[in-house]
Amino acid sequence: MPPMHSSITDVAGIEVGHFSDTRRHTGCTVVLARGGAVGGVDVRGAAPGTRETDLLDPTNTVDRVHAVMLAGGSAWGLDAAGGAMRWLGEHGIGLPVGRTHVPIVPAAVLFDLYLGDLSVRPDADAGYAACAAASADAPAEGNVGAGSGALVGKIFGMERAMKGGIGTASVRVRGITVGALVACNALGDVIDPATGRVLAGARTADGSALLDARRAMLDGEVPTRVAPGSNTSIGVIATDAVLTKAEASRLATVGHDGFARSINPAHTPLDGDALFALATGRAGTAIDMMTLCTLAAEVVALATVRAVTQARGIEADGVRIPAARDLP
Amino acid sequence: MPPMHSSITDVAGIEVGHFSDTRRHTGCTVVLARGGAVGGVDVRGAAPGTRETDLLDPTNTVDRVHAVMLAGGSAWGLDAAGGAMRWLGEHGIGLPVGRTHVPIVPAAVLFDLYLGDLSVRPDADAGYAACAAASADAPAEGNVGAGSGALVGKIFGMERAMKGGIGTASVRVRGITVGALVACNALGDVIDPATGRVLAGARTADGSALLDARRAMLDGEVPTRVAPGSNTSIGVIATDAVLTKAEASRLATVGHDGFARSINPAHTPLDGDALFALATGRAGTAIDMMTLCTLAAEVVALATVRAVTQARGIEADGVRIPAARDLP
Repeated sequence: MPPMHSSITDVAGIEVGHFSDTRRHTGCTVVLARGGAVGGVDVRGAAPGTRETDLLDPTNTVDRVHAVMLAGGSAWGLDAAGGAMRWLGEHGIGLPVGRTHVPIVPAAVLFDLYLGDLSVRPDADAGYAACAAASADAPAEGNVGAGSGALVGKIFGMERAMKGGIGTASVRVRGITVGALVACNALGDVIDPATGRVLAGARTADGSALLDARRAMLDGEVPTRVAPGSNTSIGVIATDAVLTKAEASRLATVGHDGFARSINPAHTPLDGDALFALATGRAGTAIDMMTLCTLAAEVVALATVRAVTQARGIEADGVRIPAARDLP
Repeated sequence: MPPMHSSITDVAGIEVGHFSDTRRHTGCTVVLARGGAVGGVDVRGAAPGTRETDLLDPTNTVDRVHAVMLAGGSAWGLDAAGGAMRWLGEHGIGLPVGRTHVPIVPAAVLFDLYLGDLSVRPDADAGYAACAAASADAPAEGNVGAGSGALVGKIFGMERAMKGGIGTASVRVRGITVGALVACNALGDVIDPATGRVLAGARTADGSALLDARRAMLDGEVPTRVAPGSNTSIGVIATDAVLTKAEASRLATVGHDGFARSINPAHTPLDGDALFALATGRAGTAIDMMTLCTLAAEVVALATVRAVTQARGIEADGVRIPAARDLP
């Protein structure tokens, strides 16, 4: 028996499916809510790539979404949401409008166009495949789906970066479950908030150890080799609590505090950090928003930590990129 | 000689003045930029009280502000900004418009209407007095100005709260100084991000020790006695770097990561957390935004920690509210 690990699929009404491309380190991950879920979003990074986020503004009309797509491939990867719409449409899932249903699939992408054949990017077929693979089982973590090509700690150049990935976590308090799924491709380091220790990120010039990017910048080191638009952490918070659209939006906002605690620097000019929130309402009740917000930030931080601790080192184009587990 | 401490006034072109009311634990604090400073703001809490923040939207026209007012007194305290305008007007400082000058004074307030005569609130005269007291000296910290009546850790009720306050910090990297001034009146606990340790916040039921609010909520404790609108951390980030208005806005946004790291929970439905950024440009140059954003978050966290470590316990209306230094 593998050790039990908590996951966003512990939230009733939530399924997750990965598509990992075999040709290159890229892919996409769908979070399915077949029964619909009240949605929210907060885009905090300065270099985002998103789809259907305006719809999630609490002052706008539609409040239920049927899936969230997270994808690699930078802006190209937004097409994966179209594949999820096709899959949902074939299953009769969507917003009823007149004689048809329109599946609502917000999406966010991360940049993983570093290594291999860069014409290979998650497309509509990739998004469809992720939906076909979705289940309520605990999803794989690390180098899969939207985390396939994710790297962290690029702030002092790609050659000092480490492998990022995708991770998940959940907590259950007073009958309510809150989970998160995070694909971490941060410019900055990933930190364990419980200790302040850097887990993965920029390495020293010889590549043998962690640098501590924040400390290095405070000491005057210059992040000179940062490629524009080459980063971004994206994720989904899900809960079975009954929430309004405005409450789901607040959950996404406070969820970013989980990024702030587990990534440093976060929300930079070159990260497009975005978090969605989904409330399935399957618990039939809610707990106070104060506790829910606290839990949302907590699971986002835990899932971010999992994204790098579950990742594995890769080698591509003759470049070796280690993961947290590869460093002493 | 007192030990040297770094402060927001280390930033060239920045002065700070406190007004602390002698009748009740309330007051206001002005951050003056007589020469004008490019301004930005990010309001992240869900219960804000602000003035002139729409002007700071990077798509809007005016980009220079002459002061930022931080005040107690909840929404009443917004009048303190009017007093700062009067003082600035008398000194010929403001945006030239036709035959006159209009001083631009964004403001944010915190709720400190707990103890004493609640009709005593920072007003225009208080704001004027804060300006008259302003200087480039390192400002007092703890129970002064906008921090006079600030409390933290109210999430399990006022009777388990501790004294908040106002704090400041600065760092200097590659010829650029970044400082912050924070009045911390958080619903949540204040954390040392370097260790994850709670410094001040909600106490155990008998009041003798720190509870760790986040841990308690994860363990199922219910925050039942939270008074609506009774919280908020507000502050100013200042730098001598040359920034555009959009860059100042980004600095305020990433500054909130400093709140996320030093306050838990932060940005809750009952906090009106707001941060301003001021760029005086007095260094005549800039460094990369990546480093600046990292430093902004750093000084906000440091100033928040100072706000509670420099605070002193108070007694009012027969209630004893201890500070961090009073607990073992």
